Amino acid sequence: MSQNIRKLDVKVPAVAESAYAITIGRGMLGRLWGQIRDRWPALNPFIVTDAELVKAGHLKTLLGNESVPSFVIEPAGEVSKHIQTVVAIVEEMEKNILGRDSIVVSLGGGTVGDIAGFAAAIFKRGVPVIQIPTTTVSQADSSVGGKTGVDSSVSKNAFGAFWQPEAVYIDVETLMTLDDRQYRAGLVESVKHAAIRDKDYFEFFETNINAILDKDMAVLEKIAYTNCRIKAEVVAEDPTEKNLRRILNYGHTIGHAVESASGFELLHGESVGIGMIAAGKIEQRLGLVADNRLERIKELLLKLGMPTTIPTALDKQRLIELLRKDKKAVGSWPRFILLESLGTTFCKEGQWAHEVSQDTVEKCLDELYE
Amino acid sequence: MSQNIRKLDVKVPAVAESAYAITIGRGMLGRLWGQIRDRWPALNPFIVTDAELVKAGHLKTLLGNESVPSFVIEPAGEVSKHIQTVVAIVEEMEKNILGRDSIVVSLGGGTVGDIAGFAAAIFKRGVPVIQIPTTTVSQADSSVGGKTGVDSSVSKNAFGAFWQPEAVYIDVETLMTLDDRQYRAGLVESVKHAAIRDKDYFEFFETNINAILDKDMAVLEKIAYTNCRIKAEVVAEDPTEKNLRRILNYGHTIGHAVESASGFELLHGESVGIGMIAAGKIEQRLGLVADNRLERIKELLLKLGMPTTIPTALDKQRLIELLRKDKKAVGSWPRFILLESLGTTFCKEGQWAHEVSQDTVEKCLDELYE
Repeated sequence: MSQNIRKLDVKVPAVAESAYAITIGRGMLGRLWGQIRDRWPALNPFIVTDAELVKAGHLKTLLGNESVPSFVIEPAGEVSKHIQTVVAIVEEMEKNILGRDSIVVSLGGGTVGDIAGFAAAIFKRGVPVIQIPTTTVSQADSSVGGKTGVDSSVSKNAFGAFWQPEAVYIDVETLMTLDDRQYRAGLVESVKHAAIRDKDYFEFFETNINAILDKDMAVLEKIAYTNCRIKAEVVAEDPTEKNLRRILNYGHTIGHAVESASGFELLHGESVGIGMIAAGKIEQRLGLVADNRLERIKELLLKLGMPTTIPTALDKQRLIELLRKDKKAVGSWPRFILLESLGTTFCKEGQWAHEVSQDTVEKCLDELYE
Repeated sequence: MSQNIRKLDVKVPAVAESAYAITIGRGMLGRLWGQIRDRWPALNPFIVTDAELVKAGHLKTLLGNESVPSFVIEPAGEVSKHIQTVVAIVEEMEKNILGRDSIVVSLGGGTVGDIAGFAAAIFKRGVPVIQIPTTTVSQADSSVGGKTGVDSSVSKNAFGAFWQPEAVYIDVETLMTLDDRQYRAGLVESVKHAAIRDKDYFEFFETNINAILDKDMAVLEKIAYTNCRIKAEVVAEDPTEKNLRRILNYGHTIGHAVESASGFELLHGESVGIGMIAAGKIEQRLGLVADNRLERIKELLLKLGMPTTIPTALDKQRLIELLRKDKKAVGSWPRFILLESLGTTFCKEGQWAHEVSQDTVEKCLDELYE
């Protein structure tokens, strides 16, 4: 080897703090397009939505008679959350002669937002994206925080990027057309936010459960606002999930395994609900028994019509196998987010994700079977 | 519309300054793997290279007898710089059970670096990448600065991301196996760096042209170092190309059009050389005539065996059309980077990219035909 090694440092400069706004209201979709065009007059919009949103009339409400280049994901749903959908979107943008001065507008649920956000992140090294979430899950969760991604033919979320939205617009009126099962399952993410960070919010949920099930729009606005406030606090502190942001994963570790083992027959929210109860069982075995939160969480999930046990058809060994492959696993076994009390996540020595033995997890799963 | 609009700001925190090291030497490839494993012991490596590099023996030199999961791009070259190659790489990483604790090692020229860097940028929301460039172009230019990207079926560089490397290792000995035409054309990026930022470096090139053509390794190390120093200064000041970084585009606007119109028969460096001469003609028409730089640049390009005229087969109207579609065009016409004198880029009112009328550009092109 040469004795004459030269070294040179390339500085990557600091990036200043920035911010984006979430606007929450009801019935604003029909006036939003004008606002977007006024606010970003120099950018050429491209809309990404799905066949269900078109059918429900929301694209028409947004655009009125305007004709805007767009891509309608078909079929709607997880099955289209694939890298080839992103490739098709980018190629459609190019066919519309869109360049770096374009802005992607995502109208839809979490799947549409993940696909559109990722397409925006990688189109010509990145263009801005506006998120208009239209489901309880996406209004509570996936439209805020900048996580985007799609599946490969080998596994879920193989591709992705952190890509913060330019703005988020939440119109709770779009929830009125949402299928009832989707509507209720999506509220589990709200219960999750309450459980990990805000006891008052949890009590608001308990008190207003009938208004929530009746889709009372004033209550839904309050829920949308509180969800976004909690999520914004967490992601602002830790945008790329080095530590605190992991608390948003509460209920998700076992939830993801259950969702996947069910072949996505169970919805994301339904699976996360089961995961929250499993976390409660783990807490009990570890002696984190400050209050009767597990009973209250279970009660609330039951009122939302959520399953609170694991269907017997889901083999426990399969769940263990899926937990070993969890994308956040360290040494082939995931860490778990646990509660200390209702509204407070358990933190030990600065860490939010905790080691729990496979034996303990297996015992808790055993208790959860129907 | 509801009167009760709620707003909420989500902060996206600042990102601190960081840095990565470029290490330059000769004959270090054979000892590099141990260094990489020592420096990133917790990360699982995945190598991306191409069939030519394997044939030239460089993968074997890097790895010795070690077996490491890898992807060999085949065929080598621009034709494989396509999104589907990136999809295949990510799926291969998944089949090797690689997760977020992986590190991509790119061994090859600019095409390999672009593909591997982009795959790293989007694999599970991003994993680090080490660049080991093996050509004159990539050692001078594309391995530093974090631009990555690939083509779609519709156009070039449709997909991309800014993704800074974790480290860059340049072994000039890898240039010894490089095809002579590629070797010489790649040096045009070095001449470009000299022309825009460093008159002394330009004179070093003029003085040492024979040693350069003879692939004298001591001279090549000095060239690699100076290129990286210049590029590092520029990209450190403006990593996402808002202004200063555009000077690296000197010779590239017309160069890209010529390269594309030739159906990539002309190499990138050959085309950029023609673009530099075209820029010189524009400078003369705009009265930027401080020195005899155009003659000196032309002379140096001739000694490198570069074409200095546009082949008659390339239709001028086709070039104009391509210029209109330039990805940096503003209102369907690109801006141009020009020299003020040898080693100094022309800057006016803080702007480095200048408006030049289509008429002026056409007249300059006319003068450039064989």
